[in-house]
Amino acid sequence: MHLYILDLYQITMAYAYWKSGKRNETAVFDLYFRKNPFKGEFTVFAGLEECIKFVKNFKFSVSDIDYLKTVLPENIEGEFFDYLQNLTTNEVRLLAIDEGMVVFPKVPLISIEGPLPVVQLMETPLLNLVNYASLVATNGMRFRLAAGRDKALLEFGLRRAQGPDGALSASRYCYLGGFDGTSNVLAGKLYNIPVRGTHAHAFVTSYSSVAEVKEKELFNKKTNQIEKFTPVCIEWQKRLAPVLDFLTDQASEGELAAFIAYAQAFPNGFLALIDTYDVIRSGLPNFCSVAMALNDFGYEPRGIRLDSGDLAYLSTVVRENFRKVAEKFGVPWFSKLTIVASNDINEDTIHSLNQQGHEIDSFGVGTHLVTCQKQPALGGVYKLVEINKNPRMKLSEDVEKVTVPGRKQAYRLFGTDGNALVDLMMQPSEEPPKPGERVLCRHPFQESRRAYVIPAKVELLHKCYWDMGKVVQPLPSLCELRTKAMNSLQTIRIDHKRALNPTPYKVSVSTQLYTFMHELWLQNAPIGELS
Amino acid sequence: MHLYILDLYQITMAYAYWKSGKRNETAVFDLYFRKNPFKGEFTVFAGLEECIKFVKNFKFSVSDIDYLKTVLPENIEGEFFDYLQNLTTNEVRLLAIDEGMVVFPKVPLISIEGPLPVVQLMETPLLNLVNYASLVATNGMRFRLAAGRDKALLEFGLRRAQGPDGALSASRYCYLGGFDGTSNVLAGKLYNIPVRGTHAHAFVTSYSSVAEVKEKELFNKKTNQIEKFTPVCIEWQKRLAPVLDFLTDQASEGELAAFIAYAQAFPNGFLALIDTYDVIRSGLPNFCSVAMALNDFGYEPRGIRLDSGDLAYLSTVVRENFRKVAEKFGVPWFSKLTIVASNDINEDTIHSLNQQGHEIDSFGVGTHLVTCQKQPALGGVYKLVEINKNPRMKLSEDVEKVTVPGRKQAYRLFGTDGNALVDLMMQPSEEPPKPGERVLCRHPFQESRRAYVIPAKVELLHKCYWDMGKVVQPLPSLCELRTKAMNSLQTIRIDHKRALNPTPYKVSVSTQLYTFMHELWLQNAPIGELS
Repeated sequence: MHLYILDLYQITMAYAYWKSGKRNETAVFDLYFRKNPFKGEFTVFAGLEECIKFVKNFKFSVSDIDYLKTVLPENIEGEFFDYLQNLTTNEVRLLAIDEGMVVFPKVPLISIEGPLPVVQLMETPLLNLVNYASLVATNGMRFRLAAGRDKALLEFGLRRAQGPDGALSASRYCYLGGFDGTSNVLAGKLYNIPVRGTHAHAFVTSYSSVAEVKEKELFNKKTNQIEKFTPVCIEWQKRLAPVLDFLTDQASEGELAAFIAYAQAFPNGFLALIDTYDVIRSGLPNFCSVAMALNDFGYEPRGIRLDSGDLAYLSTVVRENFRKVAEKFGVPWFSKLTIVASNDINEDTIHSLNQQGHEIDSFGVGTHLVTCQKQPALGGVYKLVEINKNPRMKLSEDVEKVTVPGRKQAYRLFGTDGNALVDLMMQPSEEPPKPGERVLCRHPFQESRRAYVIPAKVELLHKCYWDMGKVVQPLPSLCELRTKAMNSLQTIRIDHKRALNPTPYKVSVSTQLYTFMHELWLQNAPIGELS
Repeated sequence: MHLYILDLYQITMAYAYWKSGKRNETAVFDLYFRKNPFKGEFTVFAGLEECIKFVKNFKFSVSDIDYLKTVLPENIEGEFFDYLQNLTTNEVRLLAIDEGMVVFPKVPLISIEGPLPVVQLMETPLLNLVNYASLVATNGMRFRLAAGRDKALLEFGLRRAQGPDGALSASRYCYLGGFDGTSNVLAGKLYNIPVRGTHAHAFVTSYSSVAEVKEKELFNKKTNQIEKFTPVCIEWQKRLAPVLDFLTDQASEGELAAFIAYAQAFPNGFLALIDTYDVIRSGLPNFCSVAMALNDFGYEPRGIRLDSGDLAYLSTVVRENFRKVAEKFGVPWFSKLTIVASNDINEDTIHSLNQQGHEIDSFGVGTHLVTCQKQPALGGVYKLVEINKNPRMKLSEDVEKVTVPGRKQAYRLFGTDGNALVDLMMQPSEEPPKPGERVLCRHPFQESRRAYVIPAKVELLHKCYWDMGKVVQPLPSLCELRTKAMNSLQTIRIDHKRALNPTPYKVSVSTQLYTFMHELWLQNAPIGELS
């Protein structure tokens, strides 16, 4: 299946290369992006493992070839299909930055070298596998930065993603970017991501009276006996009415029934959605009644979820009432019950909630997270930078679109405080920068922008992941990638990470690479008027 | 795999239903949306075939159950897993509007009836399969409306979609919405969508001189002989220089070489990307040189693609130059060569190009189409409307979020001109509206908004697609769905379809349903102050 992440033009190009005698030319392509997403100044690189697996499994099946024969013109030479059928990635080398690293524009995430038609065939697959993965991992990381380390972040996007598998990618890479769990059961099964979930409004509206709950009993952990549970809940409703200032006949009986049924099913970790009817008059009192009954039976309830309304206000009121119950009935843990919020939350909502003050412990995020509503595509590109050892440079009237030609070594230079100072691209023939020695870092396009840097630590950014038919780096687990992403983010200065007007992180080139680029640029300059 | 389009809370709810004695209650859920996407006033319904297949294949595997056991708390009763294992959709009925139909808010796209836990388990799968499919089909249709019937629309979104399968959904449903083809080869193979593609900028930059093109010859269809081709191209470059007012030494030789190689590979239907260096000074002259050489050899070239710059201006200049060549060399078809544009195109770009005037024949659209940048999620919802023959109504302070309770029959009423006038929901016990007889159509929530309509034609909107274990409607091919969508759109008045400030299409209820709803609403009204 994966083989076919192909645009037709890759096949037509492969044929033209093959036919015009370029099939054995060696090409180098860089995959990179030009601009960080979401008006931010950082990106989390994700999707590499899938890329390596694609390269490893690259093979046209017989049925693929049969289909291609129907698509291409009749006069295609038959030998080409034999060539396609026998294509492998045994002559391909793939270098990449580690998955999970925080990355920046212009520095290749992946650099791939091999026979021209083969590496051209990698274009769309690698872009497809990196673009969305990195975008949504970055989005996840931004939510994490907004919410802070101590909040739980849950991905609830399955129903709004691009089909079942779009949702899987979303769950996987949001977790990499720092989420704590997902509602998506298959993602849990496949990637070992913690899965979370309670119940929907429909669960509540499906009950209309307590009589509907057939099972009236629950095992009492304190007495070790099965005992009537429903009456205890109703009793608690009466006791709580003056404390929480509600009228028992205004609290929905159907909702109480639903909570009782849910608590009997999940007496440990009971968590209820309390906004089906009225949070203050019904949902909250009903929850507290059932939660206190569970407490009587020796269970510890978990908390509530809010899915509508003013989340700052409601969460605060809920917390106040939790505190009242805690104090009045001597159950201090009640004041610490979890409050989950999940109503159309985006990064800005969280910042705004933080400003207003709120009592939310956990955010469930769907649409805005998985669709990346703020910017739904990362503009990753795949550019030819060298062919048969000759550098190639894509010129453009827009200087931001000019490529950095040839093979490059990229380094991240760190200061004495452990923070990343700058990324530096050099030519492979150059001596790497050394800790303690000053090195000139230049803006790739603006001559006046340059500075000497004395790194305390130097990190080579690219590793070879695929070498002539073999995976030559360990592929970490998703959980390890998540840790890597968190650690990498730690080394990025806070002003690069802030939500509003962050400072751009510097990506630079060495003087040798700068001179090389600009000489090549001059050779390719168009004749004619200045544009 | 598909079974697992589940949110965990569906499983926890199923357990609570099962445990509290509600496993055999019969529930009806409606799947609908509240607002048309993209600030428009229509939506194309898509994804139904996938829903039916999901319902048909619904089955928990042993490994699914094993996984669920690890996720749910330890004290879950073991019998529940046997129950899950044996679940089928044999007691489920699914009614739906035909896929491809133009649809409107509030009218259920799907109405599903069956045992409460089973139909609750359908929530996320159905939403996942309908939401994105309908969103992107609608987006495709909007591009079609913007571009007009005579333009070719090609979907190029593979590299920006949510992984390989997100891209497949995009290709499939853009085609349903009126696109003509895709670059995605697998979508072509699986869904029989025409695939399209030529070459990338990298193909052009991989050549630096004509000498690199190993194959110098091409079969001449006029002489029936293999003849030198490259010199003919170079000769044409010289002849065209004064006509197109360019200098041969300014036209990139690498680009000419790339075009020659591509033309030799695809002499029929040669189409070249002409903006790698400079459209006017290099790309266009090089294309014309190779195209005229192909003409000498008896082939008909197809045209050019522009992927940057001012598309209105460049397409006009290109067309003018095509006309010059046509006239000067007596090749009238040259003026009609295809101009494809593909630079970050969205719906607004096309409207703006139309205003400015342009000569583009075909649009290649990627990012904005598949990510639905303008609004990346359709807010489809799944609401309980009846349980054990008792209607259910989800109340909300926001009147737009109030559900229309109970089972409903929905009709579309057409005028004598064949245009749709209004959608009307009634209770199942009511007599359907009849052609020629007046019927009162009421706004579901505002008493004052109502009107008598005399339909010329009445169409029942819902059909039963799945009945107690069987698919009971034919599932049309994708191509048939595409035709259905086009035809359905034809019946929608033009003011509902316009891009700017379209008129809302009316969705109404019968007096009986109106009264029923509002009485139920009153019964459920909260006690307390007005909100």
